[in-house]
Amino acid sequence: MPRWKPDARERLVEAALDLFTERGYDETTVAQIAERAGLTRSTFFRHFTDKRELLSAGQEMLSTLLAEGIAAAPSDASPLDAVASGLDRASGAMTEFNRGLGPRLHAAIESNDELRARNAMKTVGLAAAMSDALRRRGTSEAAAQVAAELGVLAFGLGYRRWSDPERDDAPGDLVTHTRAAFAELRAAAAELR
Amino acid sequence: MPRWKPDARERLVEAALDLFTERGYDETTVAQIAERAGLTRSTFFRHFTDKRELLSAGQEMLSTLLAEGIAAAPSDASPLDAVASGLDRASGAMTEFNRGLGPRLHAAIESNDELRARNAMKTVGLAAAMSDALRRRGTSEAAAQVAAELGVLAFGLGYRRWSDPERDDAPGDLVTHTRAAFAELRAAAAELR
Repeated sequence: MPRWKPDARERLVEAALDLFTERGYDETTVAQIAERAGLTRSTFFRHFTDKRELLSAGQEMLSTLLAEGIAAAPSDASPLDAVASGLDRASGAMTEFNRGLGPRLHAAIESNDELRARNAMKTVGLAAAMSDALRRRGTSEAAAQVAAELGVLAFGLGYRRWSDPERDDAPGDLVTHTRAAFAELRAAAAELR
Repeated sequence: MPRWKPDARERLVEAALDLFTERGYDETTVAQIAERAGLTRSTFFRHFTDKRELLSAGQEMLSTLLAEGIAAAPSDASPLDAVASGLDRASGAMTEFNRGLGPRLHAAIESNDELRARNAMKTVGLAAAMSDALRRRGTSEAAAQVAAELGVLAFGLGYRRWSDPERDDAPGDLVTHTRAAFAELRAAAAELR
């Protein structure tokens, strides 16, 4: 892997996750996060409103990418093919930085009620973004909701497999994983009775 | 409707929702909730750990009912028929008290970030409870997840229609609504391409 110098924003997220894991989320202050990252508090506040925002900052970008990918699908694409296009767009934008974050992010979220609640809201937000994008293509509400939930499940499953440090067979890009996960879920949905 | 005297637990929930709507969630204290309900603080704490728990207290019961209904479905029932059985079980347990709560609960949740996050976690928790119950019946993980999400969507949609004060055509029981919602979502899922 090439030597790589993360920018301030990424350093802050990494420092925060390390501290959340070591000391707990409630016990970690913004000052400590900035210090660990080798930055000042004012640099922290140029990037984030507060420490809660650190972990949800990626959500808006992710929602936007999913919705853009859905909007960009050919007009005759089916709802599920449009979701596949959204997943490709969002997955393609994730870097090795996002991959390395996975296990620590998961550990931090599981260790704290507030973070678990915010993460759940993020999941609901992603589904809403996809469902809205599908409705703008003329998909019925019920179909849009179901297709969006399949998309959320596929993104989560693909991301977990991709960022799992114990899977050495994991290929290098998230797109491969979300496509495989979405194919599995589509097949399962098609067979449901 | 017969005259009906709510018990302490229900009075506390009603008083809390009224106060959350009037003053905001953050500004409402346990003492104020107890006073509005005509009860003491110690009665409050016999029923709930804190004011946050007020709104999620029903979740464990709901998860249990959904899982029990899924487990009770005939062993040869399909995953979706098992989910339908879970929805019937949970919906059948909801009373006019739950129905009347709907709009105020919705308003309180929408007005506060913390409540929105906790509500999202509740949704995720219901899906997990149904998915786990399906897996115990031998349903594959992917199929269980998809079927559970359909169940969550159906329960939410049915409950919103049932408790919507502007729908006078709404029949008196939630079961009718969740069945109709689930049928719509199943049809939409079956047609997805």
